Amino acid sequence: MAIEVVLSIDIGGSLTKVGLVTRDGNILDKVLFKTNAQRPFPTFMKKLQLEVEHLQSKFNSEIKICAIGVGAPNANPFTGLIENPPNLNWGQATPIQRILNQTYKLSVTLANDANAAALGEMLFGSAKGMKNFVVLTLGTGLGSGIVVDGQLLIGEHGTAGEIGHVNVDPKGRMCNCGLQGCLETYASVTGIKRTVFELMADMYENSPLKSLSFEEMTGIEISDAALTGDKLALAAFEKTGKILGSKIADTIAHIDPEAIILSGGLSKAGNVLLNPVKMHMEQYLFNAYKGKVKVLLSTSTSADAVLGPAAMAWLELRNIHIG
Amino acid sequence: MAIEVVLSIDIGGSLTKVGLVTRDGNILDKVLFKTNAQRPFPTFMKKLQLEVEHLQSKFNSEIKICAIGVGAPNANPFTGLIENPPNLNWGQATPIQRILNQTYKLSVTLANDANAAALGEMLFGSAKGMKNFVVLTLGTGLGSGIVVDGQLLIGEHGTAGEIGHVNVDPKGRMCNCGLQGCLETYASVTGIKRTVFELMADMYENSPLKSLSFEEMTGIEISDAALTGDKLALAAFEKTGKILGSKIADTIAHIDPEAIILSGGLSKAGNVLLNPVKMHMEQYLFNAYKGKVKVLLSTSTSADAVLGPAAMAWLELRNIHIG
Repeated sequence: MAIEVVLSIDIGGSLTKVGLVTRDGNILDKVLFKTNAQRPFPTFMKKLQLEVEHLQSKFNSEIKICAIGVGAPNANPFTGLIENPPNLNWGQATPIQRILNQTYKLSVTLANDANAAALGEMLFGSAKGMKNFVVLTLGTGLGSGIVVDGQLLIGEHGTAGEIGHVNVDPKGRMCNCGLQGCLETYASVTGIKRTVFELMADMYENSPLKSLSFEEMTGIEISDAALTGDKLALAAFEKTGKILGSKIADTIAHIDPEAIILSGGLSKAGNVLLNPVKMHMEQYLFNAYKGKVKVLLSTSTSADAVLGPAAMAWLELRNIHIG
Repeated sequence: MAIEVVLSIDIGGSLTKVGLVTRDGNILDKVLFKTNAQRPFPTFMKKLQLEVEHLQSKFNSEIKICAIGVGAPNANPFTGLIENPPNLNWGQATPIQRILNQTYKLSVTLANDANAAALGEMLFGSAKGMKNFVVLTLGTGLGSGIVVDGQLLIGEHGTAGEIGHVNVDPKGRMCNCGLQGCLETYASVTGIKRTVFELMADMYENSPLKSLSFEEMTGIEISDAALTGDKLALAAFEKTGKILGSKIADTIAHIDPEAIILSGGLSKAGNVLLNPVKMHMEQYLFNAYKGKVKVLLSTSTSADAVLGPAAMAWLELRNIHIG
């Protein structure tokens, strides 16, 4: 009998990941390709179809694709559109749900990448068995997915969970969204890089990071430097953790979750990030929450981004069968 | 046939309100008495029982009390307890749900006052027909109730919606919760009074507010002064509106609601508060939300606090009948 899988598509500003994922989160196969975000959407669709064909051809009748899950920036589950994505040159509204549905004759579930990640953690990762939690994806930006009582918080207009754009400082850093002082300008891979450069101006310690240009430096170099005790990198993690921790305290004062789960590139730094986040979060927490909320590292979507959209597709299939 | 009512009890730090409320939000009768918060709970219970007896005796068999709704600070719907209320000298945990249930042999629904207010607005007030909204009660402190998809957001530990304690400024005003810079130290009746005194130090304009001591001044005098064009009072509303508006933008970035509803004493100032809140909120809003979220004044729980716990009791009765 053919193995039942879902086709999971994680669209990022630079890379798109496509995978075949079983009900229990086993990734049978996957492929990565450049999104080529500056090219129009039809160019992307052609590439995607070729890659999917290639994946399918490896398995033929051994697998049965049951549904499609798509995670993408600015994806709206109500409209089925990718709306005004700042990092994709696809125009105001791309009807990706309809196009994929027509192409593959399968149910297509769509959500923004961070919301998909939250469901990935719930089904396959750190949030297994939890009903109230928040996932923060610390990548190029800061995405978030909020789960309340076992359901994704979608909101009135399909755009809940933009915690990356809460305000840290009205006179703070310029954000590519047009606002000033957004959390993601501090707490993301790009944010910590900006902090490193700020600290290079303030501090005089030697650091291997000083040999890299702004364009060259990645989160990995900052993490690696911190793990070898580099003072500049450690100070950057301390500052990032303080800002992120204080804002997580604000999120908890809204949602009262069981846990906050950190995912994405920056979370791979582990305790170097986790420790200052926890410390400052506890310091800013209202009494009712102190000592009650866990901060965990992602064990699913950080390992593989395709697990987010895959979880979404499997949950949708479950709803169809129940409903 | 007897009119079906619920017994609604709104416990505040200074006053307790008890009312008999019909299914459609008609208050048949109500009574106010001093909570005497420094006295122990049994003293309060005796007074409450007397007042309830008195209310009942006015109607006798004309009414049938179907359930009890209680709104109180730090009330936890999961445990049925009032837990560590900062303004009530009742000890760590008062099992008010159990005691009222045993006394009156009726189902007792408990929530904190702001959560009750949110349900009051949904059933009887500004949020009629809405499924996603947030109520902010601007009284002595700042309480909040969040409704997601038609359900009160309760959280993992029963304590969601403490927006009064999100951080405005880590070096800001001391809060009676022990933290520093909490939103309620700025955006509440007490908060705007503190702002008036701060501005009296900064500004030199004459103002009728200058004849009042800190202890004498109430929110009403500040509102009245603002409505007659007093510069000091207007500056205080502008500053309050700016801080509240910017933090409402953060709340929207979590919840994506249809509306924010302002209730409580300070909301009675009307447009003098509403206009700066709206303006600054829009300024800080992430693009996806700009122009989409209404800010409204309470039409229910501001008019009468007993409508909050009453709504809770009626919703619980509906659940019992459906469930």
